[in-house]
Amino acid sequence: MGSRIAVYPGSFDPITFGHLDIARRAAGIFEKIIVAVAEQTGKTPLFSLPERTRLAALACSDLRNIEVTCFSGLLVDFARSVYAQVIIRGLRAVSDFEFEFALSLMNSRLAPEIETVFLPTSEGHSFVSSSMIKEISRLGGNAQGMAPECVLAALMEKFHNK
Amino acid sequence: MGSRIAVYPGSFDPITFGHLDIARRAAGIFEKIIVAVAEQTGKTPLFSLPERTRLAALACSDLRNIEVTCFSGLLVDFARSVYAQVIIRGLRAVSDFEFEFALSLMNSRLAPEIETVFLPTSEGHSFVSSSMIKEISRLGGNAQGMAPECVLAALMEKFHNK
Amino acid sequence: MGSRIAVYPGSFDPITFGHLDIARRAAGIFEKIIVAVAEQTGKTPLFSLPERTRLAALACSDLRNIEVTCFSGLLVDFARSVYAQVIIRGLRAVSDFEFEFALSLMNSRLAPEIETVFLPTSEGHSFVSSSMIKEISRLGGNAQGMAPECVLAALMEKFHNK
Amino acid sequence: MGSRIAVYPGSFDPITFGHLDIARRAAGIFEKIIVAVAEQTGKTPLFSLPERTRLAALACSDLRNIEVTCFSGLLVDFARSVYAQVIIRGLRAVSDFEFEFALSLMNSRLAPEIETVFLPTSEGHSFVSSSMIKEISRLGGNAQGMAPECVLAALMEKFHNK
Amino acid sequence: MGSRIAVYPGSFDPITFGHLDIARRAAGIFEKIIVAVAEQTGKTPLFSLPERTRLAALACSDLRNIEVTCFSGLLVDFARSVYAQVIIRGLRAVSDFEFEFALSLMNSRLAPEIETVFLPTSEGHSFVSSSMIKEISRLGGNAQGMAPECVLAALMEKFHNK
Amino acid sequence: MGSRIAVYPGSFDPITFGHLDIARRAAGIFEKIIVAVAEQTGKTPLFSLPERTRLAALACSDLRNIEVTCFSGLLVDFARSVYAQVIIRGLRAVSDFEFEFALSLMNSRLAPEIETVFLPTSEGHSFVSSSMIKEISRLGGNAQGMAPECVLAALMEKFHNK
Repeated sequence: MGSRIAVYPGSFDPITFGHLDIARRAAGIFEKIIVAVAEQTGKTPLFSLPERTRLAALACSDLRNIEVTCFSGLLVDFARSVYAQVIIRGLRAVSDFEFEFALSLMNSRLAPEIETVFLPTSEGHSFVSSSMIKEISRLGGNAQGMAPECVLAALMEKFHNK
Repeated sequence: MGSRIAVYPGSFDPITFGHLDIARRAAGIFEKIIVAVAEQTGKTPLFSLPERTRLAALACSDLRNIEVTCFSGLLVDFARSVYAQVIIRGLRAVSDFEFEFALSLMNSRLAPEIETVFLPTSEGHSFVSSSMIKEISRLGGNAQGMAPECVLAALMEKFHNK
Repeated sequence: MGSRIAVYPGSFDPITFGHLDIARRAAGIFEKIIVAVAEQTGKTPLFSLPERTRLAALACSDLRNIEVTCFSGLLVDFARSVYAQVIIRGLRAVSDFEFEFALSLMNSRLAPEIETVFLPTSEGHSFVSSSMIKEISRLGGNAQGMAPECVLAALMEKFHNK
Repeated sequence: MGSRIAVYPGSFDPITFGHLDIARRAAGIFEKIIVAVAEQTGKTPLFSLPERTRLAALACSDLRNIEVTCFSGLLVDFARSVYAQVIIRGLRAVSDFEFEFALSLMNSRLAPEIETVFLPTSEGHSFVSSSMIKEISRLGGNAQGMAPECVLAALMEKFHNK
Repeated sequence: MGSRIAVYPGSFDPITFGHLDIARRAAGIFEKIIVAVAEQTGKTPLFSLPERTRLAALACSDLRNIEVTCFSGLLVDFARSVYAQVIIRGLRAVSDFEFEFALSLMNSRLAPEIETVFLPTSEGHSFVSSSMIKEISRLGGNAQGMAPECVLAALMEKFHNK
Repeated sequence: MGSRIAVYPGSFDPITFGHLDIARRAAGIFEKIIVAVAEQTGKTPLFSLPERTRLAALACSDLRNIEVTCFSGLLVDFARSVYAQVIIRGLRAVSDFEFEFALSLMNSRLAPEIETVFLPTSEGHSFVSSSMIKEISRLGGNAQGMAPECVLAALMEKFHNK
């Protein structure tokens, strides 16, 4: 059996300690993790694709066997192009789960040879989400302990021009 | 990085096509899957521990890199004893998820080095559960297509002495 | 197109105003409703099958085009025996929904020609359940407004020998 | 008792095999189904009202006792105008259910004489939604098996000018 | 122990009988309730901040120990500025709960000395929400019994220029 | 306005750090908390009523303005007898919420003058439950950090006669 490559996709707008926790734990299970920043995100992102990719890369720079890249198009097409057998998704709460479950069923129909596996969010990160830290930062609050320094600085610049 | 061993625990009272689907897919991701039949099951099981283990072993006999065994005591203690780094759990529905999430948080506190990963149930098995097929069989119905022949035969014998 | 017969199954241990509301509304949609009291109920019922059937029949006596009967064995077999095309289920809450959804998928596999339709519980009955009124009555409370008089009297007799 | 008319409302942006499955099964229960395409959809639709109506009509053209029309204003007002006694809704998942439950309670207050009944999504359509197939198509994927040919062609034209 | 001040925050776009029920019941538990209308609401509100605040104040004018004010910035900063020890939130349904739970965990990290308490929505208000009554009103329906007269009049003016 | 008394009811079989967290935080909001150990618990408890009460009292002995007592009969009758205006419930997860919501609606019908308020479980206690720690202890595991020493000792004695 060859090495196992897993894709960890998301909009990472921006990357949080919750995302990093999932990536780090996935990297302990699989040979290589590709953090894959999606160009399309459903809604207009706060950060551009290059910004989101750069912040994710900075945040992951000291994690072993983790690569960061961006992609466009269907996730399963990207996963196939990098020979990944696994898609990683973090699970925070029930509403997550509903959507994620539907997505995994759709992906398994589009690409039956790729498995989706879910990792539960660790205690202490259960409420941390990109939208929450954007909201806190936008309202002048301090999201320290929820995202890496480079992300907090980028948020400060985006919302308060500092 | 050495080989990855994953434990797939459960009461398997009895094993269903839903369980087998999870085991088979997990076996495509990890080097070795240990289907671990739990002695204690919360409620009184229909089948004894040897019966549950035998049926699971029969059902898995033609699946590569899958072993079946039974265990007692804490799951994390068993997982450590077989050098597993991963616990596999299948996910069917939200109510599953709630309980499974709590269980995974507890296990990660008892054994932080072991990760729980969830695999979503495949389409076509979303409603198949041990309790459903026991209920169908008990009421004289036919659970064909929901569990292997050896399980259907064992149910028939248990409920209708044939 | 001939007349539509719908089965409304349950353990009815005992029948409540929530059940009656579903039956009455279903009777406005379908030609004939058969309230079908299940012999087997999963757990030991408080009332015997004849008692549950008698209370349901009493409670439904003034509802037009509703019959009450009991059955044993698989629900789909009973539904077929009375030429029903529809199974009615009331829906109270999410946890209901999960289980009911699984059950309806299983029944549609066992009998693809029979449809399960769900009716949402009316406001004012959303918290009324057989187990709640048994609990209230057991603890000496008054479940008035939650079940018909004949049921309240039967509960009083069961728990307090009056 | 006269004939039963049921309205199956939605934005149908565009119609999917999931919708068609619900319509077809409802048509086996009720005398006449009116697939009612809502002008207002909450968010900006991909297809115009005439486009959505035309695609729904095409998709339903070979289904017996099903009509397709569009409407604006309150659903209950439309239902009354066509003498419908029943509103049909498909149910996919818990998050659906929450919203649908609230909607049905509101509609029952606005029009107590009209019942909302829910049909559970069939296996094999549980993850199919209009937004999923739009997303797949937008990203260059193939939504075959999830919507009728006329819809796939319309999506292709919309997103890729072919 | 001094007096207990509780903040009841929201976008109140516009205030409904559901909100008023929560405020009134909270006022029976705590010494003083501050209904706090948030400037930022996530999505573009129908009513301006002064309009939302004025309608809330009108609606609460005959409720004892309730004040209405507006605020911007982080909720916990506002709560601290008025010496509140408690944040009140109404709970309608599971999807509410998920989000509210995450929010309360975040707020407890930002301000550990402030407690969030949830009050369950009363029967009869379980489906009433600002977005539902806006939708009804926009489509020409009558939201009577779901919001106070001043709100119904404001909706009429907003949507139909009367 | 007089002082506020709140009842925090439960089976406390046995009391956990999750319960103590709720009690302690409630004691910061209300004048007096009565931890009320219910005689009837639905299922057969591990610990007797005197044992459960004694462990709860020991665990709360250093918490200010908290009393521990036991009760039988309906919760609302007990709450009235101690002049409580508030019932406190901790909320852990969605499945909790469903049941708790139904219970609070029923209690508000039985005693409209008493409010139920929910406190969300703190991070770090989200998976701690009486049944989990009983299970861990029964299987020979260590529930340290999940319940007070007196409870751990009582569990050890109960399961392992030490």
